[in-house]
Amino acid sequence: MTENPAPAPEGADVDVRERLVELAKRRGFFFRTAGAYGGAAGFYTFGPEGAALKRAVENAWRDRFAVAEGNVEIDAPTVLPEPVFEASGHLDTFDDMLVECADCGTSHRADHLVEDHADIEEAEGLPPEEIESLIRDDEVACPACGAALSGEPVEDFNLMFETAIGPGSGSPGYLRPETAQGIFVDFPRLAEYARGQLPFGVTQIGRAYRNEISPRRSILRVRELTQAELELFVDPEGGGPDLAGVADAELRLLSAEAQLDGESEPYETTVREAVDAGTVGNEWVAYYLGVASEWYESMGVDPDRLRFRQHVAGERAHYAVDCWDAESEVDGDWVELAGVADRGDYDLSKHREHADERFSVFRQYDEARTVERTDVDPDMSELGPRYGGDAEAVADELRALAGRDPETLDGESVTVTVDGTDYQVDTGHVEVTTETTTETGEHVVPHVIEPSFGVDRLVYTLLDHAYREDEVEGERRTSLALDPSVAPTLAAVFPLTDGERDRAEAIVAELRAEGFAVEYDDSGNIGRRYRRQDEVGTPFCVTVDPDTHADGTVTLRDRNTTEQVRVPVDALVALLAALRNGDRDFASLAAEYPVVGDGDGSAPAPDPGGE
Amino acid sequence: MTENPAPAPEGADVDVRERLVELAKRRGFFFRTAGAYGGAAGFYTFGPEGAALKRAVENAWRDRFAVAEGNVEIDAPTVLPEPVFEASGHLDTFDDMLVECADCGTSHRADHLVEDHADIEEAEGLPPEEIESLIRDDEVACPACGAALSGEPVEDFNLMFETAIGPGSGSPGYLRPETAQGIFVDFPRLAEYARGQLPFGVTQIGRAYRNEISPRRSILRVRELTQAELELFVDPEGGGPDLAGVADAELRLLSAEAQLDGESEPYETTVREAVDAGTVGNEWVAYYLGVASEWYESMGVDPDRLRFRQHVAGERAHYAVDCWDAESEVDGDWVELAGVADRGDYDLSKHREHADERFSVFRQYDEARTVERTDVDPDMSELGPRYGGDAEAVADELRALAGRDPETLDGESVTVTVDGTDYQVDTGHVEVTTETTTETGEHVVPHVIEPSFGVDRLVYTLLDHAYREDEVEGERRTSLALDPSVAPTLAAVFPLTDGERDRAEAIVAELRAEGFAVEYDDSGNIGRRYRRQDEVGTPFCVTVDPDTHADGTVTLRDRNTTEQVRVPVDALVALLAALRNGDRDFASLAAEYPVVGDGDGSAPAPDPGGE
Repeated sequence: MTENPAPAPEGADVDVRERLVELAKRRGFFFRTAGAYGGAAGFYTFGPEGAALKRAVENAWRDRFAVAEGNVEIDAPTVLPEPVFEASGHLDTFDDMLVECADCGTSHRADHLVEDHADIEEAEGLPPEEIESLIRDDEVACPACGAALSGEPVEDFNLMFETAIGPGSGSPGYLRPETAQGIFVDFPRLAEYARGQLPFGVTQIGRAYRNEISPRRSILRVRELTQAELELFVDPEGGGPDLAGVADAELRLLSAEAQLDGESEPYETTVREAVDAGTVGNEWVAYYLGVASEWYESMGVDPDRLRFRQHVAGERAHYAVDCWDAESEVDGDWVELAGVADRGDYDLSKHREHADERFSVFRQYDEARTVERTDVDPDMSELGPRYGGDAEAVADELRALAGRDPETLDGESVTVTVDGTDYQVDTGHVEVTTETTTETGEHVVPHVIEPSFGVDRLVYTLLDHAYREDEVEGERRTSLALDPSVAPTLAAVFPLTDGERDRAEAIVAELRAEGFAVEYDDSGNIGRRYRRQDEVGTPFCVTVDPDTHADGTVTLRDRNTTEQVRVPVDALVALLAALRNGDRDFASLAAEYPVVGDGDGSAPAPDPGGE
Repeated sequence: MTENPAPAPEGADVDVRERLVELAKRRGFFFRTAGAYGGAAGFYTFGPEGAALKRAVENAWRDRFAVAEGNVEIDAPTVLPEPVFEASGHLDTFDDMLVECADCGTSHRADHLVEDHADIEEAEGLPPEEIESLIRDDEVACPACGAALSGEPVEDFNLMFETAIGPGSGSPGYLRPETAQGIFVDFPRLAEYARGQLPFGVTQIGRAYRNEISPRRSILRVRELTQAELELFVDPEGGGPDLAGVADAELRLLSAEAQLDGESEPYETTVREAVDAGTVGNEWVAYYLGVASEWYESMGVDPDRLRFRQHVAGERAHYAVDCWDAESEVDGDWVELAGVADRGDYDLSKHREHADERFSVFRQYDEARTVERTDVDPDMSELGPRYGGDAEAVADELRALAGRDPETLDGESVTVTVDGTDYQVDTGHVEVTTETTTETGEHVVPHVIEPSFGVDRLVYTLLDHAYREDEVEGERRTSLALDPSVAPTLAAVFPLTDGERDRAEAIVAELRAEGFAVEYDDSGNIGRRYRRQDEVGTPFCVTVDPDTHADGTVTLRDRNTTEQVRVPVDALVALLAALRNGDRDFASLAAEYPVVGDGDGSAPAPDPGGE
């Protein structure tokens, strides 16, 4: 996961960022783990509200990327043995560049320092020597103590957490740096489950670990994160997806070519156009860019603050043929939310080389093919005396020729070359056999298309894009305009006075039985209860008042507009379901039911109990 | 997690166990991870069916132990820094006993070896020296190579996986051995979220790690597991739970006392009786034993193969005041599924000692209390000359006395003892002050009640208790009688012939839109499709046939009885929902709808297409 520090259209507002992080801690969204022990950099705990939001994101991802697409889901361990990462390449190449300050001992990510100081946007792909030069030339200083870093070595640091499996010194294992490897390494069993039919997709939602040199910006760059990944195994010669479902999905694209031309603004297009124009080379990649774009919007990501940026050369991971990142604008920076990568046959070919099992599928031909195989049996009693020490090599060349170009053996003699020397061999000394076999298919190493999503960063983005502040009568009020489909609490139910407690609690019980996330609150005045719910992003509040006993209606309040309508208790289940699913919006309710007051902002609800 | 190797009522059937594990691998429930690299002992991957079953278990646990009980859920990192485990005691005491064979180098869990060889049921609590003696006296041999282990040292081996956080040598961190510590360590923030009101409960579902010396029996003893834990923070002087909801829940209990009396059969009682008789000392523990008992049964655990066994002295973890394990009988052994522990104030007191923040809550008195505090100010210019080197100690004793027993300072003189010497002090040399303060409450360290559930072991138990074999016409048929509430697939839909494919696919789409897990299968004859679904525990199969076009009905088949009824397509959603929730059983459908055939076992469905 990389961040592109290029400035976003709007300037960063550090105060707002700090207030959002403070809100997240105070109201139980997320906070640094083990604060009582000074914390550990890069580790965060999701409190009750944050865990609920994160779960909603995970469930929505599962619905869209697994269930709706017919992809299965597995659950593999987070610790994997060393041979997996020898094969995958992570042991050799999953590095960041580290420079340590000789004065204060602080470690820094060298490429980020250079990006911050020098006029370079993307330093990750540069060799360490070049980074050292840039540090020297630009007189980069240690951000912690100010000492000059010039002359300090820049070294590769592997980002995997290592541990030892088993007693004694154990055997080395690593916390997986991506959930993907748990899928690739057991491809043989998963292919069997899919009955060997391509394409098939396997998803996983779970932890991944990266021992970042400089974790920063709360949950945006952490050492333990949650990924939701789909590994789609496709036939490299097979057809692409049916684009129909997402052909018109809008994409804001920033291609590698445009970036090299100095462009920083994405241009708007559709999936169909991007495929037709060849901007996105692989149709599966384009398909999932479309799915991702629509999904992010449905989650509550501001579409104007979302773009898809293609990796430029040098930026791509060691396994990627092509990759497009979904990036959201947060605090004035573009932050990577997801990558949709074409990994080619890299992963399965690597495991195929290193492991004992079959990392391919058998592709049946439409009809069986008859194949002629020519083989040769050179007569060594003839070749030996003639070619001496080169005789075996001559025989090997003849065998290779039989596979490559059997017709050349039809003549009376044939010329083979060994170490630059041409030998003319009498074909009478070579027995040529031709066998005809029927082949029903062939073994194919599938290619992998990988939409890989970061869950933590999306949670942060949803909070950031939903964060609202306004001032009412000199007091700053904060609300989170979270989408009803992901809000930790869909509705809060309040009794206006003590006389309505039982009725309110009965409504809570009924709504919970229907599977809605509902809170009950009877403490403090109504205005204050609204503020509390606004702060944690609860979209709707239901107030039970004395009229409820009389006419069976309650007040339903919309967080975003503070509008209120009077609806029958009996209609609540259906209305909340429709509001959550997006089948209705609040404006349509205001057209159907009596509107009450003119919003609680300017006309606060009465305070029966005071505080 | 410990296993009690005491034999179960029924003998173990190793063949059945092997066939279950083979089924689990072949049909995608679980398999050893990275088999292509020889695997890593103690690490398993849940395939598509197993991951779905595991997720159903986790969701059901969340519904029952978090949502229904009003407990919140958090999501903390799996890697925690060392100070957390210094405080928790895991660094010192989370050990198993290791003995290594000098001949072949294999490591073994010493207490298990002794339990297998000597006439000892529970060796975990014995000191290493005693285990060494037992190995010598019983001539225990290495199970791997047969060499004598007598004389080999038995050593404590810490079960936590260690890693290094950050670059360079980093700072030590550990993979959490229980999810609980992620909750305890951030108690200050969680208490703030709960507004300091006891009792409050915090749950977490996630990975825990134990570097087992000898992982064994597939997913029953693994190195990476999933726990579902509830940490309930209660006021040690506060009231217990309302038992009403579970008072009549049945419990099969085996108390520590009964075990010491040589009893191995549990006796049947209820939660209310167990509390009244004092068998279960803590009412919160009893409450959650009742909840657990009912919940396990609802998941599909055979109630006759479930018991609750109290830990005997020496068996309890270092933090537990009391603990009852839920154990299920699997393959003839009793396996720990969960523990409901009274952890007392151990955890919060430990973190309170080691950390900087407040690990207590403020308990308001019903009414403010007036408290008199006596303090003394000894006149050192008088005491110094009189008591020389002991003067400071005498002053300290006087101050202590003022707090302990202020009345003694009312007289003209008072006697204090320093290092065995009595000094009679003139109270005229001591200024005594009395201050009256009003206190509104006090700081209380909550006690912790912890229901802790192992998810992997429950998944195994559900498969084991659901496993059925029978022979039909000389062929072994396997089915999994999984409960509809947890089965990976609720219903499979089959077109009888190609003519019904569209209709069948439309039904699948409709059922999926309602949130049901539904599979479509059109390959092979109907009997074979039934077999496939029976093997993965799909409770219901829907067959669309030519009559469906005419009368709008389909055949609905029950896996357990192979009975079939003819139901309207329009009724499917409601019927499947009722069957899944347990509101109806299949027998009630057979009473309402026409029964078809007499089950497919003896009268196989016609085979329209062959294979």
